[in-house]
Amino acid sequence: MHWYQKEISLTAKRRGFHLVTDEIFRQIPEIKAIQKGMANIFIKHTSASLAINENADPTVRIDMESHFNKLAPENALYYRHNTEGPDDMPAHLKSVILGCSLNIPITGGDFNLGIWQGIYLCEHRNNGGSRRLVITLSGE
Amino acid sequence: MHWYQKEISLTAKRRGFHLVTDEIFRQIPEIKAIQKGMANIFIKHTSASLAINENADPTVRIDMESHFNKLAPENALYYRHNTEGPDDMPAHLKSVILGCSLNIPITGGDFNLGIWQGIYLCEHRNNGGSRRLVITLSGE
Amino acid sequence: MHWYQKEISLTAKRRGFHLVTDEIFRQIPEIKAIQKGMANIFIKHTSASLAINENADPTVRIDMESHFNKLAPENALYYRHNTEGPDDMPAHLKSVILGCSLNIPITGGDFNLGIWQGIYLCEHRNNGGSRRLVITLSGE
Repeated sequence: MHWYQKEISLTAKRRGFHLVTDEIFRQIPEIKAIQKGMANIFIKHTSASLAINENADPTVRIDMESHFNKLAPENALYYRHNTEGPDDMPAHLKSVILGCSLNIPITGGDFNLGIWQGIYLCEHRNNGGSRRLVITLSGE
Repeated sequence: MHWYQKEISLTAKRRGFHLVTDEIFRQIPEIKAIQKGMANIFIKHTSASLAINENADPTVRIDMESHFNKLAPENALYYRHNTEGPDDMPAHLKSVILGCSLNIPITGGDFNLGIWQGIYLCEHRNNGGSRRLVITLSGE
Repeated sequence: MHWYQKEISLTAKRRGFHLVTDEIFRQIPEIKAIQKGMANIFIKHTSASLAINENADPTVRIDMESHFNKLAPENALYYRHNTEGPDDMPAHLKSVILGCSLNIPITGGDFNLGIWQGIYLCEHRNNGGSRRLVITLSGE
């Protein structure tokens, strides 16, 4: 039985949906020691989130940004939390809709993802900066 | 300590929200060996998703389909990813909103769900076909 | 290796988003025995949910309630499930959007949350009553 836990950073990204499977994977070589288990990826922020979706066509990620800007628009008249800029309250809303952690099965030392699945960093701020993740791996 | 992992399939279902608690449970008899632990159910697709909600009244699942068709409509003018049919980009959006994995406590060899809770397969494509899940059980 | 599991209750809360990090933490002193691991918090209901977001400014939680009332409004003409009151079907919709379980890394005997993160109970019913959670801790 293995437990492995570490904190890693993702480089600063512009607002939008970004494929980060490889940027995460290369920072956790310890995953190779696990034949069957689970990976938890947790983002320690309230205005960026994590998701899993299509890894091939970049227009999917563009459409996600467009659509989430409709689902959680800037400057809604009923927002009271607006002192940190028009992108701030929508960022919190997108974060709870998408979620702050992923749980991915590990099989044979690798993420057991579907062929079209990749990990997204969803950056909801205009200038969110580098983002901090906790990775916890367990298994045998 | 037990780790158990397997891939299973769900039969093809029409677009909509489907109760699949029993279809999953009967494929994982190994759960009975675990007194306390966790089950992760992960769907290896980007246009179907998993959720937990009301297990009794089928109109809840009909309303979910109606409402998600409003939240992520077909043929939005700003969609760029539209070569795979009008149901494709909405399927990706519904998938990230609902999520691709569930984490359910195991107690006494069974899912520890609330009395009204059941597991939904949310099929977002008109013809999604059979869907592939990875089930990972851990506990003691 | 530790596995710890228990059911706890949260006191009844009015409809809205509530910070419950401390109400949960003080009911699981067993977490202090775990140096690295995972906590799963699972709500056994279909009309309340759990989320992680901003822990400081209460206007964020007010705006969440306002916005989710737009995302899943009462009395939509297409709802068929409406015998349990106008707040019932929207509660089910909010529950699947936000989700019924959280997975939080444990580090050094505590939740490893970001400095601005807290745990929300999202109460979607007008009179939801006390809510039941299953807490599962694992780690070493």
